[in-house]
Amino acid sequence: MNFTIDRNILLENLNIITRGLPSKTPMPHLTGIKLDIIDGDLYILSSNTDIAIQTIITKENIDIKENGSVLVPGIVFIEIVKKINSEKINVNLIEDKILIIKTDRSEFKLRVMDVFDYPSIDFVCLENPLLIQSSTLTSLIKETSFATAQTERRPILTGVNFTCNGSEIKAIATDSYRLSQKKITLDETYSEFNIVIPNKSLNELLRIVENLNEVINVYFSNNKVLFKFKNILFQTRLLDGNYPDTSRIIPQDFPVIIKFNRNDLLETLDRVSLLSPKDKENNYNIIVLTLKKDKTVEISTTNLEIGDAIETITPCEDVEGPMIKVAFSSKYLTDAVRVLNSDKVNIKFTGETKPFIIDSDEEANVLHLILPVRSSY
Amino acid sequence: MNFTIDRNILLENLNIITRGLPSKTPMPHLTGIKLDIIDGDLYILSSNTDIAIQTIITKENIDIKENGSVLVPGIVFIEIVKKINSEKINVNLIEDKILIIKTDRSEFKLRVMDVFDYPSIDFVCLENPLLIQSSTLTSLIKETSFATAQTERRPILTGVNFTCNGSEIKAIATDSYRLSQKKITLDETYSEFNIVIPNKSLNELLRIVENLNEVINVYFSNNKVLFKFKNILFQTRLLDGNYPDTSRIIPQDFPVIIKFNRNDLLETLDRVSLLSPKDKENNYNIIVLTLKKDKTVEISTTNLEIGDAIETITPCEDVEGPMIKVAFSSKYLTDAVRVLNSDKVNIKFTGETKPFIIDSDEEANVLHLILPVRSSY
Repeated sequence: MNFTIDRNILLENLNIITRGLPSKTPMPHLTGIKLDIIDGDLYILSSNTDIAIQTIITKENIDIKENGSVLVPGIVFIEIVKKINSEKINVNLIEDKILIIKTDRSEFKLRVMDVFDYPSIDFVCLENPLLIQSSTLTSLIKETSFATAQTERRPILTGVNFTCNGSEIKAIATDSYRLSQKKITLDETYSEFNIVIPNKSLNELLRIVENLNEVINVYFSNNKVLFKFKNILFQTRLLDGNYPDTSRIIPQDFPVIIKFNRNDLLETLDRVSLLSPKDKENNYNIIVLTLKKDKTVEISTTNLEIGDAIETITPCEDVEGPMIKVAFSSKYLTDAVRVLNSDKVNIKFTGETKPFIIDSDEEANVLHLILPVRSSY
Repeated sequence: MNFTIDRNILLENLNIITRGLPSKTPMPHLTGIKLDIIDGDLYILSSNTDIAIQTIITKENIDIKENGSVLVPGIVFIEIVKKINSEKINVNLIEDKILIIKTDRSEFKLRVMDVFDYPSIDFVCLENPLLIQSSTLTSLIKETSFATAQTERRPILTGVNFTCNGSEIKAIATDSYRLSQKKITLDETYSEFNIVIPNKSLNELLRIVENLNEVINVYFSNNKVLFKFKNILFQTRLLDGNYPDTSRIIPQDFPVIIKFNRNDLLETLDRVSLLSPKDKENNYNIIVLTLKKDKTVEISTTNLEIGDAIETITPCEDVEGPMIKVAFSSKYLTDAVRVLNSDKVNIKFTGETKPFIIDSDEEANVLHLILPVRSSY
């Protein structure tokens, strides 16, 4: 293998490939990046037990002297290309043992791994794609995935559930104490599906697609899903098992609806949470929201060790309904309010111990639900 | 105690006071900040076993309803003031137990500690100050303190040695493998001194003074030194013991002097260090500098596990003297080159195993020394 390539083009591809390297692995070969020249194009591949990423640099961007394959230590290779400030890089494999990376002024000799030990990756067959805008996919992930479970107690809850009924995709995430859900409408009609994608994979995908403006082709198989865009294939395994049916826990009638200025509410939550005691199991901060007789809202916390905090916030529209006092995690409410994109947000209550809803009038397809905690305050 | 104060003025002072809070302490009272109203002024105090910081907010900036003293939980108090967005803050101590912090919309009730348990701090007598510009003090610290020892094996080396011969101050730091030294000339003549200030204290002082433009008053006692500027007193203990005499290890004759472009050299060090093996004891990277027959310089590293790196760098002036090959820590050289403020830097060698000097023609009062390592490469 011997080729010369523009440093910026290689780095741009490696910045995507890096997301597929495992953070820790008992399999040393997965710490490598595989380079293959096939029919004059350069294929770059990384993978871990969840995802595999491949990019292709086509022949017009690469000057090939000799074909070949190599498995190069991933992190060091990327760091070298990052720190090189020469315009062109020559990559040359000597006796299948040493990869020489040569630039204007410097020469790096990297000991490589045996490329035949690298696991073979089966990418999903590129047929019948579902088409989705990268910005739409980004919002589906960003507005739900934070609500996935952080522990493996119920593994299926560590992923986001995507279902398609033909013309609409619904994304749901829940850790069983809160739930976030977003629906989007597709331009065309597709086959139905019901899959659960690991949150970790979605986070890596998000890092790659969130600043793009591309149509993304999505391909499905039994246990994998593949996202294809630009010169990139991003594949992830799916989680096994049935995702719980959450539709029945979402309340429909709300005797109390309070409308807040979004930024006011976020700032108040931030201040009051300073003193709120941490819940032992989940390490979240419990605060109390009280709708008072005079229709102002008090957000407060009591901490036996440090002290108390109380703040009054005036809803931005008149509130109908009875007084109410609800205790819950301030982190859950902050997470939900933060991903809403409008100036005003609604909190809709059915009762003091019943799940409540956070949404906005401007985003009809988004909904967040939080389960209150029992509180003695 | 009951007073009202501008939030920004209080925060500005707390941002200085925070540098005196201990990071860890077995003495719970030191985690507190002491507030005292004395003769209509507000005194704010923090301290740990190394340093004590006091700021004074004078009567024209504070509206006092009631005198008093309080010891308030430090970190929480600072966080609250940071997050408050109201212009004024009222601070009110109730029954010596609860401190109420009240703003337009919020009210925090903090349980306070017993103010009489706080250790009494003796500040050095404010007589016969030495005057130094904050920018001069900043450069003395920044250009030497990184070379102090990071371990407690020889505690005296964890500080910077400041000596004054009347009209000149010399700052020296060494970890016994490298040394950095800077001299400055004073505007007036002062008494001689020879003190060692803990590096930790200097780092905190640096954070406070580095962006100021003030004359700093320095006061000395047997075992402490006090820096006074603006409304601030910053006091630190001194290290006990005699600082080693380092003057004899600084070589005077240099058969080989190589001049480098500073940024070129830094970038080369950065790239080559990527592959350099870590020294086990000090965790630093060993590189080799070779002056070749053709008067170019090679900087290289050999790593049995990962691979080799080699880079050629052309000195910016013709080099006199014999060929030479020296192995040393790339971190030490990088640290030294980084704090030099000129475009060109000199590396001056006396021999392959002798200490070598890094300096610049434009900064006659600054000198860095590095001890080579024995290398088999």
